[in-house]
Amino acid sequence: MRPKLVLFGDSITEESFGEGGWGAALAHRFSRKADVVLRGYSGYNTRWALKVVGRAMEGVCPDGVAPPAAATVFFGANDATLPDRCSGFQHVPLPEYQTNLRAICAYLRERWSSTVIILITPPPIDEDGRLRDTSGDNSSGLPERTNEYAGAYAKACVAVANELGLPVIDIWSKMLQFPDWEKSFLRDGLHFTASGNSVLFEEVVKKLGDEGLSLEALPVDLPDLLDMDPNDPLKSFCD
Amino acid sequence: MRPKLVLFGDSITEESFGEGGWGAALAHRFSRKADVVLRGYSGYNTRWALKVVGRAMEGVCPDGVAPPAAATVFFGANDATLPDRCSGFQHVPLPEYQTNLRAICAYLRERWSSTVIILITPPPIDEDGRLRDTSGDNSSGLPERTNEYAGAYAKACVAVANELGLPVIDIWSKMLQFPDWEKSFLRDGLHFTASGNSVLFEEVVKKLGDEGLSLEALPVDLPDLLDMDPNDPLKSFCD
Repeated sequence: MRPKLVLFGDSITEESFGEGGWGAALAHRFSRKADVVLRGYSGYNTRWALKVVGRAMEGVCPDGVAPPAAATVFFGANDATLPDRCSGFQHVPLPEYQTNLRAICAYLRERWSSTVIILITPPPIDEDGRLRDTSGDNSSGLPERTNEYAGAYAKACVAVANELGLPVIDIWSKMLQFPDWEKSFLRDGLHFTASGNSVLFEEVVKKLGDEGLSLEALPVDLPDLLDMDPNDPLKSFCD
Repeated sequence: MRPKLVLFGDSITEESFGEGGWGAALAHRFSRKADVVLRGYSGYNTRWALKVVGRAMEGVCPDGVAPPAAATVFFGANDATLPDRCSGFQHVPLPEYQTNLRAICAYLRERWSSTVIILITPPPIDEDGRLRDTSGDNSSGLPERTNEYAGAYAKACVAVANELGLPVIDIWSKMLQFPDWEKSFLRDGLHFTASGNSVLFEEVVKKLGDEGLSLEALPVDLPDLLDMDPNDPLKSFCD
């Protein structure tokens, strides 16, 4: 039975199977080795995620079935909207963000004790990109998110991961290491371009590898064509 | 619990979560409505697929869990290798191809009586593209597949679908309707370019819709941000 990798998060997870998306890239990478299960909920913050985590995970691994090998928990971009700007209804105060993250991880740990939980921090924000984004109805001239504020949530997420002893991907800090991160990695100041997706994909692959979930370590599902004997291919299917 | 769409096939299924792939596009399209489960086995013909179908479907929907809403069965490209050329060990005679297809469908029907089974014919072949392909070890100067031969398997697949009363996507005939199908849809004379993937994606979406599995018909998993009351978002999570 193939191991499962569950992606639990907000819109950056929900859209991760779009063109160049990090979720699709994971599914492609592990195409014969693991099932990637998408549980992305656009616009959700940790307060709402905590409300739905039980329902979101229903059916991922029913009772009696092996728990997922790993789950990414990727929230914070919506928690970190500024409370007094447009989108303020998505805001969650920083201490509650941490409490919610702890509770989501506790729920997953309780349900599936062996699952590797990987926290992902909110991404950086390009305020200029947010203002140029015409998909919302922000006419205030002020961005609803700032990079500094997102950075505080990223640090808070890392702190929770350290406290719980969980692996964490600090995608906020990672992306900031690159020149022109604002435009190369973020297509609207928040969501990822193909290059941005690729940065996160590589980080997830690295973390999975650290936890023993590498391409090399996972068995291939059913005989590989390259391992078959062209003179007697059916031999591969005897056991 | 989200419905599942299972993709069972050969390399064109296995690589369907790559850049621009039809599987990833399906997962993206149904990102809040259905789980797309990848069961692609590179190089496999129907003889081998029949041997492994039980094991391939293990864990897709364990006992007691709702069966998949739909499954695509997409084999034939390898059955239709010419027996006396390189890759001949993958060849399956046409009558056996039909028998195997019937048996695979019977297996799925027996296991999951409500699942919509969609057959997909082998794709067309660009012989020139096959000869230019340097990934294999064909030094004979003769293509291991021909379009005419693939077409016979496509017709045979359609015949089986009609006989069993199953929906079928005749991707061989569909692609041939377009000018320059050889180079626009096939990157190596066999596997799909992004445009080729897109043609198949649209056909699968159409067939799923015919069977009541459209984006509009399927319920969204958990409250949609757009349906929430910004003044009281938690109301959406009360039930």
